[in-house]
Amino acid sequence: MIKRYLLAPGPTPVPPEVLLSMAMPMIHHRAPDFIPILESAKNGLKWLFQTKSDVLILSSTGTGGMVGAVNNFFNPGDKVIVINGGKFGERWTKIAQAYGLTVQEVVAEWGYTVKPADVDAILSKDKSIKAVFVQACETSTGVYHDIEGLGKVVKKYEDTLFVVDAISALVAEDLRTDEWGIDIMVGGSQKGLMLPPGLAFVSISEKAWKRNAASKMTRFYFNFKKEKENLDKNQTNFTSAVTLIIGLNEAIKMLQKEGLENVFKRHKTLAEATRAGAKAIGLGLYAKESPSNSVTSIEAPAGIDGQLIYKTLREKYGVTAAGGQDRAKGKIFRFAHLGYADTFDVITGIAALEMVLKGLGHDVALGKGVAAAQEILLA
Amino acid sequence: MIKRYLLAPGPTPVPPEVLLSMAMPMIHHRAPDFIPILESAKNGLKWLFQTKSDVLILSSTGTGGMVGAVNNFFNPGDKVIVINGGKFGERWTKIAQAYGLTVQEVVAEWGYTVKPADVDAILSKDKSIKAVFVQACETSTGVYHDIEGLGKVVKKYEDTLFVVDAISALVAEDLRTDEWGIDIMVGGSQKGLMLPPGLAFVSISEKAWKRNAASKMTRFYFNFKKEKENLDKNQTNFTSAVTLIIGLNEAIKMLQKEGLENVFKRHKTLAEATRAGAKAIGLGLYAKESPSNSVTSIEAPAGIDGQLIYKTLREKYGVTAAGGQDRAKGKIFRFAHLGYADTFDVITGIAALEMVLKGLGHDVALGKGVAAAQEILLA
Repeated sequence: MIKRYLLAPGPTPVPPEVLLSMAMPMIHHRAPDFIPILESAKNGLKWLFQTKSDVLILSSTGTGGMVGAVNNFFNPGDKVIVINGGKFGERWTKIAQAYGLTVQEVVAEWGYTVKPADVDAILSKDKSIKAVFVQACETSTGVYHDIEGLGKVVKKYEDTLFVVDAISALVAEDLRTDEWGIDIMVGGSQKGLMLPPGLAFVSISEKAWKRNAASKMTRFYFNFKKEKENLDKNQTNFTSAVTLIIGLNEAIKMLQKEGLENVFKRHKTLAEATRAGAKAIGLGLYAKESPSNSVTSIEAPAGIDGQLIYKTLREKYGVTAAGGQDRAKGKIFRFAHLGYADTFDVITGIAALEMVLKGLGHDVALGKGVAAAQEILLA
Repeated sequence: MIKRYLLAPGPTPVPPEVLLSMAMPMIHHRAPDFIPILESAKNGLKWLFQTKSDVLILSSTGTGGMVGAVNNFFNPGDKVIVINGGKFGERWTKIAQAYGLTVQEVVAEWGYTVKPADVDAILSKDKSIKAVFVQACETSTGVYHDIEGLGKVVKKYEDTLFVVDAISALVAEDLRTDEWGIDIMVGGSQKGLMLPPGLAFVSISEKAWKRNAASKMTRFYFNFKKEKENLDKNQTNFTSAVTLIIGLNEAIKMLQKEGLENVFKRHKTLAEATRAGAKAIGLGLYAKESPSNSVTSIEAPAGIDGQLIYKTLREKYGVTAAGGQDRAKGKIFRFAHLGYADTFDVITGIAALEMVLKGLGHDVALGKGVAAAQEILLA
């Protein structure tokens, strides 16, 4: 017997309450059984996104929400900035270019973030830039970009939208959509929201909606105007992903019971404990600045393959973490502390890491990382 | 207490075995726990689609699969035929036009089908027509189009693809993808496959794949070539809808245990019994020819609103059927017998219908429709 522990940055564990809510008999998406559930989930998302605007609910992965964010507000040839600090920054560029936008990348080295002032310098020279795209948490590096600071900058420019991929940051980070001037924010179900994959969420500011009519791109499945019209009737444009939305409603209720402030504090503490544990083991963090509260990227010790650590964690101890992606592959491995995560998920991860490293012949004092994490996790 | 019965043409009831399989703890989509499940579901779909080609698994509603079918094989300006016999025929036209195709509609009156010879006549005069789009079952009218006959016609034309929306027909009808020359066939999870909404399936013939490279349309989320490359590794291009694919695998196993021939026979019998029940009550069928084995559309008696029948079924007896859509609204109501459906679902529907009609003051001999259905359902 080997018990399984899911510590990957998505999909993340789904609470039993949510799993059971989704195991109830199927109901019809346009019938009165379901409509109040969608309405409740809709209102819950506004609370979670900290916005007065509606948050669309799409039947797709998070990437579908990103595609819609490009496809509904711009036109081919529009100049945009993409803040590219990793694999998901690259994805913004790929999507924007696929739809014919002219992308100017502001590149951060993997493990680093960008200074809002650098973005300001570019925007101030070219008022025709239509948007700034960024990840809140760049999942591939574990870096959190300064969304508040970037929001302040972009807000100064009337014609520039601020578009945030919050897929892996939502729930783990205090993202103040309205207060910080986030025009479009994309979330996904299988991260902080503790749900299976299959839903994307998109909040849209009034400033962004004003650009929708002028956007003449082809769109059918991700047609945000039609989604909004349906959402106003507590429906979705096409068949609602009924079970996932039932689960969404349950997950939001759990978060509401905990309270937003406590949710953010919990994630912050878990992230700090994970970082302290890794450091006490003698390992470096891959995020050289602004480490995220969703996922911690840890550098493999010299001479040990990061993928081997990831693989041994899973095969020997049943712990599914994540390896490195693209250029970070082999160099790092990653632990998430996201969504349905608590003290003993962190302890499990750090303890397993110590045992794996010892097994691989690395010089580790067992329990040292765990103790450092415990210090922070003491209630 | 009111027990609920779901007799709508999607979402349809999900078997408890499938619900429970989806309530198991979350696993990671790129890890060895999940990959054999996706492989098994992939092979099961080939069996169900009766094809040697791979069947893509997309995280979207069925409409997403339809959009991909247009978006991956054509170019703006391409001439195509859409067989339009109802709301979903209209959807093919809307999608094709949204992507700039030039649509020639072959219109069937609602409740009727088209003759393959009529399509042949058009194709023989214009070899530049790139595709024929059709629904296998037009859900809004309950008509089954002659897919075998249309396939024979389209097969004669080297440059013409045969594209079938089988979203509501799959599982209920014997659709021989390879044998009949169906180039692209789209399915959805929440119909015959007995799953929650959230997955689309698309089979693609070699003839269709040859057109993929020449199709220069913008696509990112529904990029079939990338999906195929990932499917070859038993993965999906973006995060797999893990729980739904686990459920898919279970649902296919149930269908495999029953056997394809028996599955089709069951649906045929249920549909015949439903039609016999309606006729014995004295009601007309809305499908004037080729009624489908998925869903039966029944005309409301003179002087009674079809929507009122639909609403009373649900509110008074807990039976969720479907009303009429668009121009059929008020005139008809619909019972599905699709997926996880058996003898007593039909009996329940017909018995409830008799009781609703009686309650609305219509002259009904209680039990007469039930008896007619029973005659056919006798094992």
